[in-house]
Amino acid sequence: MNASTLRREPLEPLLLDSLRQLLGDRLSTAAAVCAHHGRDESYHAPHAPDAVAFVHSTEEVVAIVKLCAEHKTPVIAFGTGTSLEGHVAALAGGVCIDMSQMNRILRVNLEDLDVLVEAGVTRKQLNEHLRDTGLFFPIDPGADASLGGMAATRASGTNAVRYGTMRENVLALTVVLADGRVIRTARRARKSAAGYDLTRLFVGSEGTLGVITELAVRLYGIPEAISAAVCAFPSIESAVDTVILTIQSGIPVARIELLDESQMVAINRYSKLDHKVAPTLFFEFHGTPAGVAEQAEIVKAIAGEHGADDFQWATTSEARSKLWQARHDAYYAALALRPGSKGFATDVCVPISRLAECVEATQRDIAELGLLATIVGHVGDGNFHTAPLFDPEDRDEMKRIESFVERLVGRALAMEGTCTGEHGIGQGKMKYLEREHGAAAVELMATLKRSIDPLNIMNPGKMVQV
Amino acid sequence: MNASTLRREPLEPLLLDSLRQLLGDRLSTAAAVCAHHGRDESYHAPHAPDAVAFVHSTEEVVAIVKLCAEHKTPVIAFGTGTSLEGHVAALAGGVCIDMSQMNRILRVNLEDLDVLVEAGVTRKQLNEHLRDTGLFFPIDPGADASLGGMAATRASGTNAVRYGTMRENVLALTVVLADGRVIRTARRARKSAAGYDLTRLFVGSEGTLGVITELAVRLYGIPEAISAAVCAFPSIESAVDTVILTIQSGIPVARIELLDESQMVAINRYSKLDHKVAPTLFFEFHGTPAGVAEQAEIVKAIAGEHGADDFQWATTSEARSKLWQARHDAYYAALALRPGSKGFATDVCVPISRLAECVEATQRDIAELGLLATIVGHVGDGNFHTAPLFDPEDRDEMKRIESFVERLVGRALAMEGTCTGEHGIGQGKMKYLEREHGAAAVELMATLKRSIDPLNIMNPGKMVQV
Repeated sequence: MNASTLRREPLEPLLLDSLRQLLGDRLSTAAAVCAHHGRDESYHAPHAPDAVAFVHSTEEVVAIVKLCAEHKTPVIAFGTGTSLEGHVAALAGGVCIDMSQMNRILRVNLEDLDVLVEAGVTRKQLNEHLRDTGLFFPIDPGADASLGGMAATRASGTNAVRYGTMRENVLALTVVLADGRVIRTARRARKSAAGYDLTRLFVGSEGTLGVITELAVRLYGIPEAISAAVCAFPSIESAVDTVILTIQSGIPVARIELLDESQMVAINRYSKLDHKVAPTLFFEFHGTPAGVAEQAEIVKAIAGEHGADDFQWATTSEARSKLWQARHDAYYAALALRPGSKGFATDVCVPISRLAECVEATQRDIAELGLLATIVGHVGDGNFHTAPLFDPEDRDEMKRIESFVERLVGRALAMEGTCTGEHGIGQGKMKYLEREHGAAAVELMATLKRSIDPLNIMNPGKMVQV
Repeated sequence: MNASTLRREPLEPLLLDSLRQLLGDRLSTAAAVCAHHGRDESYHAPHAPDAVAFVHSTEEVVAIVKLCAEHKTPVIAFGTGTSLEGHVAALAGGVCIDMSQMNRILRVNLEDLDVLVEAGVTRKQLNEHLRDTGLFFPIDPGADASLGGMAATRASGTNAVRYGTMRENVLALTVVLADGRVIRTARRARKSAAGYDLTRLFVGSEGTLGVITELAVRLYGIPEAISAAVCAFPSIESAVDTVILTIQSGIPVARIELLDESQMVAINRYSKLDHKVAPTLFFEFHGTPAGVAEQAEIVKAIAGEHGADDFQWATTSEARSKLWQARHDAYYAALALRPGSKGFATDVCVPISRLAECVEATQRDIAELGLLATIVGHVGDGNFHTAPLFDPEDRDEMKRIESFVERLVGRALAMEGTCTGEHGIGQGKMKYLEREHGAAAVELMATLKRSIDPLNIMNPGKMVQV
């Protein structure tokens, strides 16, 4: 079934009674609560669930899933609602399981550099908790998302180039399966060759195979020294070539972000800065004081070879915060270019050797189609975002945006890239899944889905058609 | 079915004819060839396949798998036969697909730091090929294994602490499924959130879900500077505490290996060295000359705080090679302690906070049970090996070894570790799978196996009982 064929039926009164008995006033059917839980931060149409369950334990999730399985009722897990492909919309109604009250940090293992948390813990909450330990959790998708949600969408962000994505940083998950059984996908060892990689099966499964209730993730020592720099380039190509050579040289850069000319206009205006309007790289270096200085000197030299002449330091923590706040506000800065409009978020990722070509062709498309769109990229990974602004009432603009996205994804796929580097498939990219992976691979995904969730109750209508 | 219930039937003549027609003299039924392909480097009893197919292309693998599926005949992929848990034994007979002639390096992407190879390419062959590019492939399990085999067993080795395991370093796989369909698990982008993680599903699946025929793996720039060091410690605990603090401090050590007293005796004798007989760490540092020097100074200081006073450098490439050759020969050095004996390889991995305790208890078991066994460990990952020597004819010794392994695995599991850090489950550790993961998780693994290989023809009798 897919979004268009999903049938929506009201919750059975018997199910509702049982849920109420289980959760008391932690079950809500209030219209406002349901509406809030049926939408994320994307342009996708909201679909409210029939009820929202604010759970406190894995056992409660088990009880809910068992009841829903009995009644063949959809179950949608909800973290903070910051996904970007309509992941939480209750396309066929059902019960939303809100994880936000499962927000206990269960166990920090300082010597092992890992932590066990409930799925509703957010990344900022975790880092706040870790403040005095000398450790931190690096993955930073921008939003203050829940760790369960980040695992479910295989999130990453600005420092994946150094620390990896959720794929590399989840050690183990506790998952409630579609029939209410609970599994723990792995133990706490750093590596294991014991059986199929169940952890990675659920990381990125977008709630379609089970509900993640707890997770163990890796932590890192807070670097002794951090420094940041900004550097404008004569062209996208020279900026990307700088990145390629930096990575080939083994410089363990912690962040390396590309902002195009339009994005620099937007952040200068929004964040009241006066950066040069040119393709620009933001860098962050982590290490010892000497190591960070050496890394930055090498990168500065590489940038110089590529025509960049204004490598600017941001060594104080204030200057650094200001710089990265501007980067984090890039999306809001872009939206502010045309107040009242929305952004149609895109997320392609290509081999870095094709990145400059891909970004430049995208800029030409933006101009040609008369769109207003800025580009920012996690350029060390070959991943970039552009979110053309739109007015949902303007049919012509929507058409041009659809044509733009079609070209963008087609180009990324032609360059051996992916339609989504970190946002996930959700509803929005289901149509690209087969073009990206081929019919046999998508059929294998459907086989996995059917064998693990035969009733299709786990977040139905998302990712893969069954 | 499991090893004991697998029924062995002779190959159907019709199947044999079709295979001969397909492969000509690249199909062998010679006893010596079949015998060679039914054993690996472990103590497990060999089981020869009925025929060995030396394939040249994915298309040939497809044709063989389709024929075998028609005749419900087992298919066992074979790389270099260096696995350690009886992975390649043809427990129910069938056709062995020898990948060694699929050994072309198809495409090196210098700017993207990746390479596409056929599954039969070995790691040394790849690094030889890369010699003039400035890049290298780091994963080093000791043996010169094929990359397809390394992916299938989720191999790692001495430098996983810095570069990760095959899990982190495989970008994409071409896999022939049990019905002959071919999938490509991912494209060439560094990261992707597009659908279930099929790559990781097949990495570590030990040939039980499909035959890997091609793979894309990550490459790294050869570090500008490499240095190595050896350091003896007053105790296992002080050595492990040094490792913990090194990693907490964010030192990107490339290799950090623990050898216990007995292992030092063995390598001194075997490799004609004169290292102090004490718990010892071998280090390797990768980076810029200044970075490497700084890393080593910090580690030396940490070691000093833990009572180590003879931190010795091996900066020349000769001294380094000698040191690491000794480490690579550790297993042969141990075997030479009692010529003619075999080693019963073990492979537990525990959270590093429990490692010293685990190693020390294991040493006590070795003494108590009157076994001859040395210990070496990839200590940055919490993974260590001990291979008690045995004479297969000595029933009493075998019994003591079984009891030893039982205690070792039980202890690792009690410490939240795994029964196998890098060797895999194969035949030898199937009995531990449920104790490690629980019944529900193992049942999920069996569900995956049944849904992807419903006829149970892919390497039957290994990893998970179906």
